[in-house]
Amino acid sequence: HIDEDRFLNELRTLGAIGTDTEKGGRTRLALTDAERQGRDFVKGLMTDLGMRVQVDQIGNLIGTLSSKDDSKPHLMMGSHIDTVRNAGALDGCYGVLGGLAVCRAYQDAGILPERPITVIAFTGEEGVRYHPDMLGSLVYAGGMSLEEGLASHGIDGTVLGDELRRIGYDGTAPVGTIVPAEYIELHIEQGPVLEAEGLTIGAVFGVQGISWQRITINGTANHAGTTPTRLRRDAGLAAAKVIAFMRKEIADNSGGTTIAATGSIAFEPNLVNVIPRKAIFTADIRDPDETKLQEAEKKLLAFLEQLRETDGIEFSTESLARFEPVKFDEPIVSLVAQTAQELGLPAMRMVSGAGHDAQMIARIAPAAMIFVPSAGGVSHNPREHTDDQDLIHGLRVLLRVVQRRLES
Amino acid sequence: HIDEDRFLNELRTLGAIGTDTEKGGRTRLALTDAERQGRDFVKGLMTDLGMRVQVDQIGNLIGTLSSKDDSKPHLMMGSHIDTVRNAGALDGCYGVLGGLAVCRAYQDAGILPERPITVIAFTGEEGVRYHPDMLGSLVYAGGMSLEEGLASHGIDGTVLGDELRRIGYDGTAPVGTIVPAEYIELHIEQGPVLEAEGLTIGAVFGVQGISWQRITINGTANHAGTTPTRLRRDAGLAAAKVIAFMRKEIADNSGGTTIAATGSIAFEPNLVNVIPRKAIFTADIRDPDETKLQEAEKKLLAFLEQLRETDGIEFSTESLARFEPVKFDEPIVSLVAQTAQELGLPAMRMVSGAGHDAQMIARIAPAAMIFVPSAGGVSHNPREHTDDQDLIHGLRVLLRVVQRRLES
Ligand SMILES: NC(=O)NCCC(=O)O
Ligand SMILES: NC(=O)NCCC(=O)O
Repeated sequence: HIDEDRFLNELRTLGAIGTDTEKGGRTRLALTDAERQGRDFVKGLMTDLGMRVQVDQIGNLIGTLSSKDDSKPHLMMGSHIDTVRNAGALDGCYGVLGGLAVCRAYQDAGILPERPITVIAFTGEEGVRYHPDMLGSLVYAGGMSLEEGLASHGIDGTVLGDELRRIGYDGTAPVGTIVPAEYIELHIEQGPVLEAEGLTIGAVFGVQGISWQRITINGTANHAGTTPTRLRRDAGLAAAKVIAFMRKEIADNSGGTTIAATGSIAFEPNLVNVIPRKAIFTADIRDPDETKLQEAEKKLLAFLEQLRETDGIEFSTESLARFEPVKFDEPIVSLVAQTAQELGLPAMRMVSGAGHDAQMIARIAPAAMIFVPSAGGVSHNPREHTDDQDLIHGLRVLLRVVQRRLES
Repeated sequence: HIDEDRFLNELRTLGAIGTDTEKGGRTRLALTDAERQGRDFVKGLMTDLGMRVQVDQIGNLIGTLSSKDDSKPHLMMGSHIDTVRNAGALDGCYGVLGGLAVCRAYQDAGILPERPITVIAFTGEEGVRYHPDMLGSLVYAGGMSLEEGLASHGIDGTVLGDELRRIGYDGTAPVGTIVPAEYIELHIEQGPVLEAEGLTIGAVFGVQGISWQRITINGTANHAGTTPTRLRRDAGLAAAKVIAFMRKEIADNSGGTTIAATGSIAFEPNLVNVIPRKAIFTADIRDPDETKLQEAEKKLLAFLEQLRETDGIEFSTESLARFEPVKFDEPIVSLVAQTAQELGLPAMRMVSGAGHDAQMIARIAPAAMIFVPSAGGVSHNPREHTDDQDLIHGLRVLLRVVQRRLES
């Protein structure tokens, strides 16, 4: 039995940390004061549950519930509690608090699980302050060195390791020592598919490939009132052409699978009557098929090279994140689908559009995810919403999947 | 006789105030600490010349040299000493220091001019911190009320009147009391025409029309990895389309007369994996022909309305500056051209691409400008350059034009 009200309350409490004063959302960028408050809250819940709490050297917050045999391989659940700016309450938090609710169900029932259960809140999943996304789980899985992770530079000029120290989450536990027998992540879909199909549960069998780049275009600053059009080397205009190109020639021309967006931009010197000498902007391109993702990257590069000729600009690109499409563990995916069916919840197998910590842990352990619908497919927005009933349905699937795995 | 070395030295000294640490330029945005230092320097020169120094209520710095008959209408010269970010040394300063050099020539020769000579450094000509451009001369000429000018909001959230007080240039002299018999402004061309034609002097007979707008596009923030293309309301993409449209359909399609640029942009929330909910950017559109400028503005508006349909965005526009094309005083323009000829300097009549304080003073007095070449047509850039010889040629033309006007 799960204490559903308590779980929903905890979601609301965590969702109130870092509340934006005007826009109705919350902002808990990784390792900010607001996120530290969120960590403290989750740490408190772990302690209350009598879990052994550890913080590892990359700041991942780890709680482990004792079992009949603590030498057996752990079952791991988790996600993250950092958010984007002006975010919803569910992204990440649902999986962390869901994992803790499962632990509480065992405890409330007075049942000692067969094997240890670990719940983990990974550092810097969103990737918006420190790149790449899923940084904490990537380091956990050995895909990035601890040193590189700690040295990641933030968009605000800070360094990840310094900020970990500043908020007191520079843990001492070595990273990645718990290699679980399985990793199961409960998450909102963040996209429109389940709602459009009228379904409640997604048995997530993979994550699409992700390519993030920072593109810098160099032109020449000049007077916007005196410089004839043919003499301009307008870095801002070139950036605008790239952004329009990504939609028209990369996304629209892909048959619907490739998606592309520019979320962030800056001009220099950024003044009304000065032709920009520099434009710095990001490209977020994704596709479930690695070949198509590579094609999209090539198209982008070719267009930039063309602009060098037509617009007289120079450019450079820097990869902020590059992850190939990931396939999850088929037995766990099937178990999720089958469990939903047993609970009478309409479900489908699906690919995740967003990146998730599960895709990193999949490198070292069998992993899968459980999705619930996002109203209107809205996420990274204060209007992100999932009906309480759906949140509970997802949690019940998680509990039953955990029980099955622990029994087997 | 003009003390040319002293003049060039003063230009270098003023040009060193507000030096950027890394980029080789200088930044003296209106009413910043750096600009106050520039004002102090110019005020010191005026005092050394024995001029009567006044600061008016909008912060214009005014020095007046006594004459044989101080009741006669003044001859006025001037320009501005504020700069854009990372600017050159000449834009504005050349005209202010040039005016003072003319005064010094009278003084060194021990000649009392027939009428008073006033040199003025106008507040906030560049228009990059406080809009509109030419704000100080606009208020001087009665084109904007003092109250409105003092209330202008800066891009950094400051208010012009507060900053005037902060730097101690909230003068008490009523604005615009000196209505001169003529206003002559010496300036670098800031464009490529004189150099391309191999000429030394431009007799400027007008200024093209200027339209500055701030455009805000509202879309919907959403997850850049999960939101299918057809469901996106991407404010950043719409902004990019507008910027590309302005070049392709407004500038390129105008037969070369209309120019257009976006110098400044910001996205919200400005994060790599969030589709922008908001894009705020500027449009700087100019044309020497008012009808064509209006056509360009209409095209822009129609395109924004079209984007409302095709891209599902909302938009609003705000005028930051709107000045019709200006014609200067024909007798002074002819005098400039004739003087250049007498001095053996190759000259042409031309229109100014940049806005200038002269176009505001033209509302209350006969006005004209003298241009010298800008190397490579570069301005609003640390590489802005005019050969010393050309700077001196321009100054000689100014002195002789002043002499002729005072004699007549
Ligand atoms: N789940 C989620 O929003 N992850 C952030 C990384 C991404 O942009 O996919
Ligand atoms: N001369 C000059 O650069 N004025 C600034 C206003 C404009 O952009 O034309």
